[in-house]
Amino acid sequence: MKKALIALAVLGLTGGAAVAQSSVTLFGVIDADVKYVKTGGLAVKKLDSSGLNTSRFGVRGTEDLGGGLKAGFWLESEINTDTGVAGAASGGAFWARRATVSLTGDFGEVRLGRNKTVSRLHLEDFDPTAFTGLGSVSAVYSNLGSGNGTSFGRADNLVSYSLPANLGGFYGGADVSAGEGTGTNKGQSVRLGYKAGPLHVSGAYASTSNAADTSKFKLTSIGGAYDFGIFRPSLSYTETKFQSRKQQIVTASVTAPLGQGQLWAAYTDAKANAAAETTVTGYTAIGDAKLFAAGYIYNLSKRTALYTTFSQLKNSGAARFAVAGAPAATANGLKSTGYDVGIRHSF
Amino acid sequence: MKKALIALAVLGLTGGAAVAQSSVTLFGVIDADVKYVKTGGLAVKKLDSSGLNTSRFGVRGTEDLGGGLKAGFWLESEINTDTGVAGAASGGAFWARRATVSLTGDFGEVRLGRNKTVSRLHLEDFDPTAFTGLGSVSAVYSNLGSGNGTSFGRADNLVSYSLPANLGGFYGGADVSAGEGTGTNKGQSVRLGYKAGPLHVSGAYASTSNAADTSKFKLTSIGGAYDFGIFRPSLSYTETKFQSRKQQIVTASVTAPLGQGQLWAAYTDAKANAAAETTVTGYTAIGDAKLFAAGYIYNLSKRTALYTTFSQLKNSGAARFAVAGAPAATANGLKSTGYDVGIRHSF
Amino acid sequence: MKKALIALAVLGLTGGAAVAQSSVTLFGVIDADVKYVKTGGLAVKKLDSSGLNTSRFGVRGTEDLGGGLKAGFWLESEINTDTGVAGAASGGAFWARRATVSLTGDFGEVRLGRNKTVSRLHLEDFDPTAFTGLGSVSAVYSNLGSGNGTSFGRADNLVSYSLPANLGGFYGGADVSAGEGTGTNKGQSVRLGYKAGPLHVSGAYASTSNAADTSKFKLTSIGGAYDFGIFRPSLSYTETKFQSRKQQIVTASVTAPLGQGQLWAAYTDAKANAAAETTVTGYTAIGDAKLFAAGYIYNLSKRTALYTTFSQLKNSGAARFAVAGAPAATANGLKSTGYDVGIRHSF
Repeated sequence: MKKALIALAVLGLTGGAAVAQSSVTLFGVIDADVKYVKTGGLAVKKLDSSGLNTSRFGVRGTEDLGGGLKAGFWLESEINTDTGVAGAASGGAFWARRATVSLTGDFGEVRLGRNKTVSRLHLEDFDPTAFTGLGSVSAVYSNLGSGNGTSFGRADNLVSYSLPANLGGFYGGADVSAGEGTGTNKGQSVRLGYKAGPLHVSGAYASTSNAADTSKFKLTSIGGAYDFGIFRPSLSYTETKFQSRKQQIVTASVTAPLGQGQLWAAYTDAKANAAAETTVTGYTAIGDAKLFAAGYIYNLSKRTALYTTFSQLKNSGAARFAVAGAPAATANGLKSTGYDVGIRHSF
Repeated sequence: MKKALIALAVLGLTGGAAVAQSSVTLFGVIDADVKYVKTGGLAVKKLDSSGLNTSRFGVRGTEDLGGGLKAGFWLESEINTDTGVAGAASGGAFWARRATVSLTGDFGEVRLGRNKTVSRLHLEDFDPTAFTGLGSVSAVYSNLGSGNGTSFGRADNLVSYSLPANLGGFYGGADVSAGEGTGTNKGQSVRLGYKAGPLHVSGAYASTSNAADTSKFKLTSIGGAYDFGIFRPSLSYTETKFQSRKQQIVTASVTAPLGQGQLWAAYTDAKANAAAETTVTGYTAIGDAKLFAAGYIYNLSKRTALYTTFSQLKNSGAARFAVAGAPAATANGLKSTGYDVGIRHSF
Repeated sequence: MKKALIALAVLGLTGGAAVAQSSVTLFGVIDADVKYVKTGGLAVKKLDSSGLNTSRFGVRGTEDLGGGLKAGFWLESEINTDTGVAGAASGGAFWARRATVSLTGDFGEVRLGRNKTVSRLHLEDFDPTAFTGLGSVSAVYSNLGSGNGTSFGRADNLVSYSLPANLGGFYGGADVSAGEGTGTNKGQSVRLGYKAGPLHVSGAYASTSNAADTSKFKLTSIGGAYDFGIFRPSLSYTETKFQSRKQQIVTASVTAPLGQGQLWAAYTDAKANAAAETTVTGYTAIGDAKLFAAGYIYNLSKRTALYTTFSQLKNSGAARFAVAGAPAATANGLKSTGYDVGIRHSF
């Protein structure tokens, strides 16, 4: 998450003052945790990666083109600190976390390439874990058999537009990913928010389609947070639909500065409708789930933190969700639990 | 294509003046285009990568060893901006675009590793697209069933030699790739050229052999260009042979500065001989093809450009060529067409 | 091997004097050799990678946290200079050579991630090639059918501890790799050494277990070296065991500065016990082997060297070992030989 660590001066490319505003930055995160996870009767102790922030390696830069126009690029690759594997969990491609080129001006920003969808960015904002690690709310998200989770993830072939800054607190964006003749990965998402002073509210809508189906997977979400200084409560509601199946997910969370760090807790209640609880050809029934996660992050510096997390997920009905990194559930309705202690270093 | 964006001072390695001449450079290109391509009745709209220059990430450097001797290295990895995949189109290896170490002195340069063959470098010089993107002349090159295209591509296990600079405009090189007991990828190529003032002429010869065959795939090519200032016409002729099969490819092109950019157009006529037009066991017949491509590149800065390209390929006989990025032809003699608009940012 | 080539100042992250002690370094080695290798009747000429030091690309850094505490990270990826492939020989993962995050203080260092085991580090210290290239002693190491060679290699999921510096010449470390429920890759190793003035002695013990077996693969090794200035002799003894099978490996070596470079030679005698010489279900018998290797390294600068190596391995009984890079033995008791000439450039 942390950034801009090395600002390399770009030499002799543009003259004078503009030079100071062009930069190329090598950045990254190395995060590792010692973890105990259990789903039903299956327990595992492990060294894992990305307990607090996803381990990554990247290069990004901006170039001042004059007249308020800027070009930018961003390359970002996931790292599994425990095995040295690159790109695995983000989709397999080396630069699967992000590979974009962009133009920014008074009109806002146009960005091309692989990237997070704006609906995913909305969801992260109202999960204290930002969809990462043992406590990630993503654990209870189902694609409802649509075969497509880009609404709450990343997409290939993305053309994104972001509103300009300086709209008095309003911000927003929209994106579309090309189906490229196959229908897979075709989608669009839109987001609008307001963030000013202590208040943050945001809403997002996304729909994606898949070659195998004419139906669209649809996601609608709203969220809000208010920073009282000593603590910041947040609430979000997300509804996903595919054919007659539906999932409703409410997350209530709080973060609070404590000493040289931050305490956080989140409670998520995910409900599946009757259709989602029914197995049909090509789709395995899910059920309801409740996820409670909490943690403490102790900052050794701006770049380095120690952290600990507790996460517990209770499945009902046919649900087989598990906390991130835990063994997959082998039966319906099991409980999945995890603890970890880790270190996150960014550069 | 362009370069040397970040010159990182190498600290404390060699003393005094030499320091200024040793450097390590992180460099790259991020290029994405919105593309409409059609082959026969199959049309696709897509976000694609590398419409003008191939997206890449690299590290290279030189070290001044004193006495006119320099050591150098070059690592370069392709990026698919649309998906984040690394290395795909260049052969699959991460550093498949280039991984070399070299020594340069009064004697010229000796370079070891994976790299473009000198015959490929010759061909690029007389294609305004340098074998890249929608209009690339490479679209009509066939390996004639030899299973080996390193003569117009890259090769593993390459030992290359380049003549020194300062030969009064003459330049040249030769390379050999080791067969390593398997016979595959065994090849050699040689190139000689003259470039001084407005004139540029060059010739190349390459032969490669493949384990499956005792015959060699042979490529002979000559090219010339003259820069009149307001426009630069270029002409090249390439002949490839494998067993009794032969392909003859003529490319006439022109580039012209226009405003803050450059206009270019290229016409290519590729003819197959009767043997090449005949399907035999292990080889599918090709036919004749004509490729017309044109484009405009508008430079926002030295590093960033907007561009647009039009490309149309007409197949005759059994030919099933398609412009780069278009759907593969499903029948003989189809027409393949594409348009794109894109942005190229280098760092 | 060479290091710290680019010290990039980390800007604005910590104040004052601490800044000077935090750094991020991009580093690497590009090494290529022209090699002739032969095993039995099979001979191959090739361009190969990593004849002297393993070709690599990496990023590493440290951050001064104050109070004697430092955070650090290290990412390192292998490169096959001949093909551009990344990570192949180190286990396949991109960052398979190393992906670690660490904390260092008065207590020593704790390091998490994929890395060399401390037993491997011990073994490298008493092989002039450091287990790399044509003459590497690793050529005669067998896992004795255990399916696990992390005792003399690298391990995933590693938690390592190193003693602090300043123990009057004593140093040491221990590591444990989590089995993560599967039993594979579960292991631990410990090492203790003394290095002061011309004397260096070290001992290591490691044991690893594998899912398929309840038995552990065990490695015990001691080594010593003394630097007389004009030459440095070294001797090591290693014993490995798995079930009733055993291998005993003695290496005697010498290195000597010569002109602008270094001459080295190593003789290794590896003996298998009767059980190891017997084929049983799931295990192919090995035999005895003698390896002689010698080379000369000529330094053009601190970063760049030319080198040449000769290596010869004689198998007895059922042994089918081969020098690194040579064709695999197709029969028992063959001789494997190699020569190379190469260049190593580090940045």
